[in-house]
Amino acid sequence: MSKLKNDTFLRALLRQPTEYTPIWLMRQAGRYLPEYCETRRRAGSFMDLCRNPHLACEVTLQPLARFDLDAAILFSDILTVPDAMGLGLYFAEGEGPKFERPLREEWEIRNLTVPDPGAELRYVLDAVSEIRRALAGSVPLIGFSGSPFTLACYMVEGGASEDFRIIKTLLHDRPDLLHHVLATNASAVTAYLNAQIEAGAQAVMIFDTWGGVLSHRTYKEFSLAYMKRIVDGLRREHDGARIPCIVFTKGGGQWLEDIAAIGCDAAGLDWTVDIDAARRRVGDKVALQGNLDPMALFASPEKIAAEARAILDAYGPGSGHVFNLGHGISQHTPPDHVTALVTAVHEHSRKRDSGAA
Amino acid sequence: MSKLKNDTFLRALLRQPTEYTPIWLMRQAGRYLPEYCETRRRAGSFMDLCRNPHLACEVTLQPLARFDLDAAILFSDILTVPDAMGLGLYFAEGEGPKFERPLREEWEIRNLTVPDPGAELRYVLDAVSEIRRALAGSVPLIGFSGSPFTLACYMVEGGASEDFRIIKTLLHDRPDLLHHVLATNASAVTAYLNAQIEAGAQAVMIFDTWGGVLSHRTYKEFSLAYMKRIVDGLRREHDGARIPCIVFTKGGGQWLEDIAAIGCDAAGLDWTVDIDAARRRVGDKVALQGNLDPMALFASPEKIAAEARAILDAYGPGSGHVFNLGHGISQHTPPDHVTALVTAVHEHSRKRDSGAA
Repeated sequence: MSKLKNDTFLRALLRQPTEYTPIWLMRQAGRYLPEYCETRRRAGSFMDLCRNPHLACEVTLQPLARFDLDAAILFSDILTVPDAMGLGLYFAEGEGPKFERPLREEWEIRNLTVPDPGAELRYVLDAVSEIRRALAGSVPLIGFSGSPFTLACYMVEGGASEDFRIIKTLLHDRPDLLHHVLATNASAVTAYLNAQIEAGAQAVMIFDTWGGVLSHRTYKEFSLAYMKRIVDGLRREHDGARIPCIVFTKGGGQWLEDIAAIGCDAAGLDWTVDIDAARRRVGDKVALQGNLDPMALFASPEKIAAEARAILDAYGPGSGHVFNLGHGISQHTPPDHVTALVTAVHEHSRKRDSGAA
Repeated sequence: MSKLKNDTFLRALLRQPTEYTPIWLMRQAGRYLPEYCETRRRAGSFMDLCRNPHLACEVTLQPLARFDLDAAILFSDILTVPDAMGLGLYFAEGEGPKFERPLREEWEIRNLTVPDPGAELRYVLDAVSEIRRALAGSVPLIGFSGSPFTLACYMVEGGASEDFRIIKTLLHDRPDLLHHVLATNASAVTAYLNAQIEAGAQAVMIFDTWGGVLSHRTYKEFSLAYMKRIVDGLRREHDGARIPCIVFTKGGGQWLEDIAAIGCDAAGLDWTVDIDAARRRVGDKVALQGNLDPMALFASPEKIAAEARAILDAYGPGSGHVFNLGHGISQHTPPDHVTALVTAVHEHSRKRDSGAA
């Protein structure tokens, strides 16, 4: 593997000194880029694109060609693991992800098994290897997975839900069954992320998209505890390099201290969190990643730059911050607004830390 | 007006001693009750039901006939104020509320005027009076309105939104225009709630359903500041009785101290908030209302009772707590599960405070 030219992102995650605040964007390879839409048309369905390592590599690199981003993230879906468990992931036009065979019966839950990443998820590992080669040491590559609870939401509900009624009823009335799903998911995600690390992922992120719909008590028992299991089981070094791990619960701002205590290197913040207070709350336990509202990218470039500066100033001088959005970038975002954001983050953080701001 | 037989709810809001923890449920008069569906069929549309004081009174009383609830809440919609401003509220089948004439042009915003509650909203005040007569002093009647920001979301977006892109773009690029909408809404809601109080509402609640989609900075400027204006302008006494005021921002758990500081008597809590920590955070500033996940009502009656006891025990002994859900009750809720909840709250809180728990 080539030596990394820009390791600012990795150093920030490890709270080591950096020259500026690194930035990447959740869902940075996506529909807001015309070149992505073009590749997607050639690929066929969304899952065809995910399953083709060559095309997955192509779209992973697209945002890096346009913007001065400090990390690449594997192009894939958060639900590849339950798909590999045999639930049949598909995307209905204009709707979110769905499963052909959601978990509805006790025997279906009892029959769940941990997939072998080297077999059922080979296509992801091949994409990781191909992307690493193509990046040629320019910036680090992030691997990722959905969290055990977030996977379980889709596995049990069968798709996106407005009220999470099915999984919450299971949680209350048959916690034993939900714990079985979550334990299986945690083992599967651990193996999957470790396989991504072996294939070349230089940092990993756990996306807990739906942990925030739980109550404070059930969050700890049914989401956070299983993310801790994963963090405990992750390879933290590979090829002589430390592999940082980011945990992000959308809507989890109230539980930041708890998240920071599970052993991850960084915690993601959505835009409801005050990053200044967040830094004081986590102390030197973890780095922080976030936290611009993706909708702020619809403002004028001048206003976008002002919003970025406000977050950088709220975080304050020093390392330990990776700039990002608080959720995936919207498909309607004008690409040149992303340029304005990236430029503002790099320029202002350099100025701030040189004392010239 | 008849003397109030059960004022437990009002005393709890004012943090005065009570014999047990009072309970009511957001959206307690609603589609989960077959008798509501029957009245709704007779009325015609949802707005026909809201606009008919006699039928609005009928459905307001229905849950009180079934359950031992400690308060009634006016049956109405949170969007009556912008409807009275001429935006044309309607409900498309199977969708949320929509406006025929959303605010899209600057001149539409500049032309907004504060409606006269005694004219355009007469039907609401007539319902309040009729319900007060029908209640005959059994339990207090709660009046309510949507918050200025929540009203603005629907007024600008034209209906429910997934990403609030239009209002957030307005917020960033034309804050002057959004402030004009919010100031108009705040004046209108103040007049509206005061008119409800004069007509007989014995407590009022401001529903800030969407404040939680804002960032911590924009929440204070664009939602909380305008709720404070309302609270500042409310009649706090009527007919010799103190009129308590409840403010509820769904998803606002991180900002509880700020909410408690605007002069309201009680703050609503959704289920993500730890009510034990919340009580310590607000001290003796406000009472707390909440905070069971509405989805917990799909569990077995035994489990529902256990969840209720857990919240009561987390709050701890003493007054200042009104039990409620953290959001409106689901239309799919089995009515007998509500009976289980109400019984558990009354029984356990009596036991807890008698030291026998």
